[in-house]
Amino acid sequence: MTTYRLASIPGDGIGVDVTVEARKVLDRVSARFGFSLEWTEFDWSCERYAQLGAMMPEDGVAQLSAYDGILLGAVGFPGVPDHVSLWGLLIPLRRAFQQYVNLRPVRLLPGTTSVLAGRKAEELELVIVRENSEGEYSAIGGRHNAGRPDEFVLQESVFTRVGVERIIRYAFELARTRSSRVCSATKSNGLIHSMPFWDEIFAEVAAEFPDVRSERMHVDALAARMVQAPDRLDVVVASNLFGDILSDLAAAITGGLGMAPSGNINPSGESPSMFEAVHGSAPDIAGQGIANPVAQILAAAMLVEHLGETVAAQAIRAAVDRVLDEGRVRTPDLGGTDTTERLGTAVAEAL
Amino acid sequence: MTTYRLASIPGDGIGVDVTVEARKVLDRVSARFGFSLEWTEFDWSCERYAQLGAMMPEDGVAQLSAYDGILLGAVGFPGVPDHVSLWGLLIPLRRAFQQYVNLRPVRLLPGTTSVLAGRKAEELELVIVRENSEGEYSAIGGRHNAGRPDEFVLQESVFTRVGVERIIRYAFELARTRSSRVCSATKSNGLIHSMPFWDEIFAEVAAEFPDVRSERMHVDALAARMVQAPDRLDVVVASNLFGDILSDLAAAITGGLGMAPSGNINPSGESPSMFEAVHGSAPDIAGQGIANPVAQILAAAMLVEHLGETVAAQAIRAAVDRVLDEGRVRTPDLGGTDTTERLGTAVAEAL
Ligand SMILES: CC(C)[C@H](C(=O)O)[C@@H](O)C(=O)O
Ligand SMILES: CC(C)[C@H](C(=O)O)[C@@H](O)C(=O)O
Repeated sequence: MTTYRLASIPGDGIGVDVTVEARKVLDRVSARFGFSLEWTEFDWSCERYAQLGAMMPEDGVAQLSAYDGILLGAVGFPGVPDHVSLWGLLIPLRRAFQQYVNLRPVRLLPGTTSVLAGRKAEELELVIVRENSEGEYSAIGGRHNAGRPDEFVLQESVFTRVGVERIIRYAFELARTRSSRVCSATKSNGLIHSMPFWDEIFAEVAAEFPDVRSERMHVDALAARMVQAPDRLDVVVASNLFGDILSDLAAAITGGLGMAPSGNINPSGESPSMFEAVHGSAPDIAGQGIANPVAQILAAAMLVEHLGETVAAQAIRAAVDRVLDEGRVRTPDLGGTDTTERLGTAVAEAL
Repeated sequence: MTTYRLASIPGDGIGVDVTVEARKVLDRVSARFGFSLEWTEFDWSCERYAQLGAMMPEDGVAQLSAYDGILLGAVGFPGVPDHVSLWGLLIPLRRAFQQYVNLRPVRLLPGTTSVLAGRKAEELELVIVRENSEGEYSAIGGRHNAGRPDEFVLQESVFTRVGVERIIRYAFELARTRSSRVCSATKSNGLIHSMPFWDEIFAEVAAEFPDVRSERMHVDALAARMVQAPDRLDVVVASNLFGDILSDLAAAITGGLGMAPSGNINPSGESPSMFEAVHGSAPDIAGQGIANPVAQILAAAMLVEHLGETVAAQAIRAAVDRVLDEGRVRTPDLGGTDTTERLGTAVAEAL
């Protein structure tokens, strides 16, 4: 029997609530599909930061590197600046492990309705392939003339040929397994250094995939299209920032952030990949047992899929669909009054 | 009788088609409300670029500076790189005239339906106050190691205290004339130099407006809110790039880009302000007479409002509403078969 060693980092807020449920589902599915999971839990979080002054130990990356996969809850807590909580955990992990793909599939799940009028489920199924290691999220920059009237800040975006090429190639390869269509988000009319470079590499890679239809759209027009004609989108490839915005929007039109999973993937397999819900730690509703665990359960499905346990992943998704379709167990965001735990258990039992 | 000297730059593609109609409406409204307009037309465009190698003459800014206002169509044409067409006209004008406010009001117009399910018109009325002179749209940056595998580009964002403070203050002042609510778009968790600075100044200015409710949201979550709960937004203040994306999205949920006007405003009045539709030159449908002129007509209303002719501006908006409400004249994007010219004339006649 294959045993996978997994790291769990529940983090803060509802990250903790939903990760418990995702693990419950994973333990059930592994028993059913003949593999076993060996979990190690890490208490890396804003609480740890408050006590020890750091989100994770100095050798955090080394500690995680031997695992087959990482399940991450969410990090962030009021009082801890985001650039501490996120740049002290989430973002360094994404980079250290070269998880350069942030994969964000969305679809309208059964029993849920879209905020868009008259759209059928089959029109609302797409995947954002977000660059996850460079781009607009850069630590390079700073403040000049601090405290003076002529104060200003600089924030550098960094796009490398290697970084842009690999994410675009990943998107094209993914498109071959889906609709054979890729749409690239650009803004070369406003960002005249980074985005023309992105477009140039997109055109080069597209030429290698003559069987895949490709187009590029400015991110403003693409956001508009996502709500006006989502059926015309399938694989969307985007920079770190654009992918962040577009994937929240994609989640919003397909049942909300409570349902959207994401994978931080290193396709080479040389370092562990990390799976998490798209939503954040939502401190306002943390610990109340009302968070929707579906996003995190679907992130867990992506994790086992990444491990090669495709059938188990499909079983998890089918179980989620069944429970949502029946509609007997619903958390408040789905219009019900059930708890996080009830919904997690219902999915585990549906397996 | 007051005479206003106006510059018209129809530009390219449908910019030309819709500007004709907006001028028709303006000429009608001026006759009715007792002021007169003296127009000068400038042929600055991609066509000019093709012939003379520049979008506008070298002294273009000086030529325009004496006008009371500018009506701009749209620029951009296939074959002319955006960073030529836009950075050779639109963006230098915005900057030379310190039109630091890009004001983008949207509302669901009569006779149109939103792509969002079950939203009433009064839930879909908001305004994006977009920073228009700095930020992510910066010419600073470049390419290193060109043509080598280790090639990369840098793209600098520049945020000054002066630039951030004035746009945020403008938003708060505007909010006092509306709902007294301001939401600021940030992304301080990802962009750790520029956006914490933006947030800091937002908090400072907010403290000067204790009567205005303020909040900040990460741009990803804000995009999601715009489609999930647009009624919870009124004045949204955003950086150049975020404002660009959010305003296209706002247009998309309220009848589409054919209906969304925008003003590039210098509130000091020391230089001319410039008004344009949010949409681009749409070369694919140019010259066919099928473009919707409403956005440009509403931009013309913003222009006369800026000149102080408030009643005339209201009359234009009322005429647009009446024509759309009757629904007898509709361009293809509104589900009809009428021409740009027919719709423009209908609005002029409704005055
Ligand atoms: C054409 C482009 C440079 C421009 C912008 O992004 O500013 C346009 O999208 C707009 O919104 O006015
Ligand atoms: C928390 C934040 C830094 C993060 C991001 O923007 O990458 C989040 O929004 C996400 O999408 O994973």
